[in-house]
Amino acid sequence: MKRIALDMDEVIADVYPKFLDYYERDFGFRPKREDYWGKKVYELEGAMHIRKYLFEPGFFRDLPVMEGSQEVVKWLNEHYDIYVVTSAMEFRNSLIDKRDWLEEHFPFIHWKKVIMCGDKSVINADYMIDDHVRNLVTFNGKGLLYTATHNTEETRFSRVDNWKEVRTFFENELKNESI
Amino acid sequence: MKRIALDMDEVIADVYPKFLDYYERDFGFRPKREDYWGKKVYELEGAMHIRKYLFEPGFFRDLPVMEGSQEVVKWLNEHYDIYVVTSAMEFRNSLIDKRDWLEEHFPFIHWKKVIMCGDKSVINADYMIDDHVRNLVTFNGKGLLYTATHNTEETRFSRVDNWKEVRTFFENELKNESI
Repeated sequence: MKRIALDMDEVIADVYPKFLDYYERDFGFRPKREDYWGKKVYELEGAMHIRKYLFEPGFFRDLPVMEGSQEVVKWLNEHYDIYVVTSAMEFRNSLIDKRDWLEEHFPFIHWKKVIMCGDKSVINADYMIDDHVRNLVTFNGKGLLYTATHNTEETRFSRVDNWKEVRTFFENELKNESI
Repeated sequence: MKRIALDMDEVIADVYPKFLDYYERDFGFRPKREDYWGKKVYELEGAMHIRKYLFEPGFFRDLPVMEGSQEVVKWLNEHYDIYVVTSAMEFRNSLIDKRDWLEEHFPFIHWKKVIMCGDKSVINADYMIDDHVRNLVTFNGKGLLYTATHNTEETRFSRVDNWKEVRTFFENELKNESI
């Protein structure tokens, strides 16, 4: 069974609603999508302190699930060896939150298949689905770039905009393998 | 720079003094080394409940550092790309404890180089130092078995009994590479 390394934040966990809530709380208005397209919300003028909220206990515990990801990951799990690989180590308090979040929303992924790391260059898999170019650049398999505001200019990797496209991509892979 | 995947428990963190403390508390005497040689302390008769203490918050936070490991890992770190790779995911409460323990005792290992996982078959490195045969069996590099009570019968891997032997092994590797 081929192996897929699956990122969490901005791939199966949607960080943006929370970022935008914090921004609105601190600045009195909600930025429009086009304002932060091409970057991160905390890269907007005067908003760098928002990144610090990532270090708070609970930040990662109640993030919404990325639309469509549960169903597609469940389907993928029947055809591939799925590992969740998340760059969690920078954020001490995220570790337990992320584990609990996965157990709640992706209970079909066994704890043996969860990896919390710093850099991902050490991960050996056939596919990686990630929103960070830095993770795909050092990856030795096929990288799929999951569209996020900060990677819109990137052209080096196959791009998926949503989980419907992820499913279509792997349906084609399975079809090609069986030919 | 070649990469070493370095295990924590029973390799750089000494779990046994704590296991023996719990055993003594619960049974009224401290088992002798020969009693649990060839197995784990909690595999002694009636002691399986001791494994449950691994799930308690704090269990992994105050373990003693394995003798000689700090100095040798510091030295290794100058010659190799060191990743700490620990099977932590089963024990929810160990995650933050292990991160804090590493920061205290191995502050020269950057958080980017720490990996908490379930199974280690996904780790790509040149060397792995581990006390568990199951991790070395699936490893694609050179495995070094760090002697622990539960692996004394194993003969398939190069064995190291202590950190002095680890240093000697890698001094020879470096010497051979430079020839």
